[in-house]
Amino acid sequence: MSEPRTDFDPRDFRRALGMFATGVTIVTARAQDGTPVGVTANSFNSVSISPPLVLWSLAKSARSLPVFSGATHWNVHILSEQQETLSNHFARAGEDKFGGLSLDDSLSTAPLLPDCSARFQCRTMFQYEGGDHVIFVGEVVDYDRSERAPLLYVTGGYALAARKAAAVSTEAAATPSSALFSEELLGYLLGRAHYQFVAGFRATLNERGLSDADFFVLSTLSVREPLSAEEIASHVAYTAIDVGAVLLRSLCDRGLLRLTDTPQPGYSLTGAGRDAILHVLAAAKSVEAGAGAQIGEMESTMLRNLLKRLISATDPGLPKLWTASQP
Amino acid sequence: MSEPRTDFDPRDFRRALGMFATGVTIVTARAQDGTPVGVTANSFNSVSISPPLVLWSLAKSARSLPVFSGATHWNVHILSEQQETLSNHFARAGEDKFGGLSLDDSLSTAPLLPDCSARFQCRTMFQYEGGDHVIFVGEVVDYDRSERAPLLYVTGGYALAARKAAAVSTEAAATPSSALFSEELLGYLLGRAHYQFVAGFRATLNERGLSDADFFVLSTLSVREPLSAEEIASHVAYTAIDVGAVLLRSLCDRGLLRLTDTPQPGYSLTGAGRDAILHVLAAAKSVEAGAGAQIGEMESTMLRNLLKRLISATDPGLPKLWTASQP
Repeated sequence: MSEPRTDFDPRDFRRALGMFATGVTIVTARAQDGTPVGVTANSFNSVSISPPLVLWSLAKSARSLPVFSGATHWNVHILSEQQETLSNHFARAGEDKFGGLSLDDSLSTAPLLPDCSARFQCRTMFQYEGGDHVIFVGEVVDYDRSERAPLLYVTGGYALAARKAAAVSTEAAATPSSALFSEELLGYLLGRAHYQFVAGFRATLNERGLSDADFFVLSTLSVREPLSAEEIASHVAYTAIDVGAVLLRSLCDRGLLRLTDTPQPGYSLTGAGRDAILHVLAAAKSVEAGAGAQIGEMESTMLRNLLKRLISATDPGLPKLWTASQP
Repeated sequence: MSEPRTDFDPRDFRRALGMFATGVTIVTARAQDGTPVGVTANSFNSVSISPPLVLWSLAKSARSLPVFSGATHWNVHILSEQQETLSNHFARAGEDKFGGLSLDDSLSTAPLLPDCSARFQCRTMFQYEGGDHVIFVGEVVDYDRSERAPLLYVTGGYALAARKAAAVSTEAAATPSSALFSEELLGYLLGRAHYQFVAGFRATLNERGLSDADFFVLSTLSVREPLSAEEIASHVAYTAIDVGAVLLRSLCDRGLLRLTDTPQPGYSLTGAGRDAILHVLAAAKSVEAGAGAQIGEMESTMLRNLLKRLISATDPGLPKLWTASQP
């Protein structure tokens, strides 16, 4: 055992506290003179089921403390992931935070904000000493909830949650920690996810007689054409698939591409080429819809976000396909 | 205004409370007779910075209540995403929850568990009335934190968090919503993430003269060998890469594989083959470490989690590589 520390750096202490994830709430009340007050707080938590009690704490230095201390009622709003702007709005000091906001009917005079993940209308039950904060405990007199995904705050920033999957298999546990090639290797997971996704529309690729290399060339040209052989190769370079003269000639021979001179020299899709790639992309969309239905909408969105961040982190400096200025 | 509701269904009320995401903690103390107690709680929250106070609440019906009520100290452990099993363990009633657990040195007699996201060693400050719970407020006398991603609890289940990210590029906005092939297509993002990841260690593949197909065969055999040609093909089938007799013969000719008869007929890595694949896998781990440092530990964990779910959702029924019973 060692001595208690008495020299906490407030910033470092906050960082440690920030490892505890929370939702984000706005708590509102109304002063005797009718002035509405509201603050963003992540210090909310449930306390008791019977009687139904919840708590939150407010800094003694908060300008709204006298109103909350004197209020018989206050409302807690658990914010949805679409209310990040509202959270920031109520986190700032300001005279009229409610200007322009529509309110729902409330049991008390406390303002009730719409479009939240859940709301708890409370009657003040206890106010407890809490150092530089006051702990408010309220009895819930009414509540409601929606299916809106909640906003999170963790390690100092907003976050989203996704259900923690049970391990896909029990394989991870069986992998010796010394193994270099394991089911936990991101490279393995990316490769397997990619190839299994493609496998979902490989039948369509096969029907159309298209290889993976054909697919990359045709899908690139479905976004922009004509492109020179060099341009096509640079867009597909990240795959390390060789897009050379042989491949392009083969696609022309099969009636999927043609060489054009206008508006500039390059390769364009033929009608048959466009038809083929649209069928394949429609099949890919269908795989995506099926996977999305299985892993969940919020999880699909999160997966896209994370893949974009990984792509950005590993980007070798690819030319932009969608936004590069047209010549 | 309408009348207060007095008829809450406890299960429905809990579901509404569950929209508020929380971390997961284990709080521990030690009885006068030396018996350690511990409970899983998500009712933790920070209260005050100066003095440093935190709170949590415990059901009055909890068997450990007398110990916590009489304890001068207790420790709060914010669990990491790898401590789900520990969370479940301490959430169950049980005589000896600490059997077999190693403990770190603590300032007080309260048990201090290792491997958490953060820990707060507390001295009991207040005990407050909270309906069917007691609210414990403690002064933090020491704390520490790690970089381990925290475990979350939201809408009735465990979850992970990832930073709410701004869009990586501005391309999405520039993509016509009618476009079939867009930067938002999960298939595109998976492919690009996969190939860019492989590009990060392609130099090592090239140095060793290894193709993608060679890589898949050698990495499979690095986990288990010997394997027959059919077994190798079935493990790699999801890539649609043709692992035929020609490829295996070429790997043998290059001195990377050999045919063995014991303990059963099949292909095994030679010393040179093992050396080659270990170098490539080390390079892949290095790419992973670099990407992880850029997108963040929490985000890497979440990305793995979501890829596993996607892989599970699109699994064509692959044979298990790591756990299949050895013949």
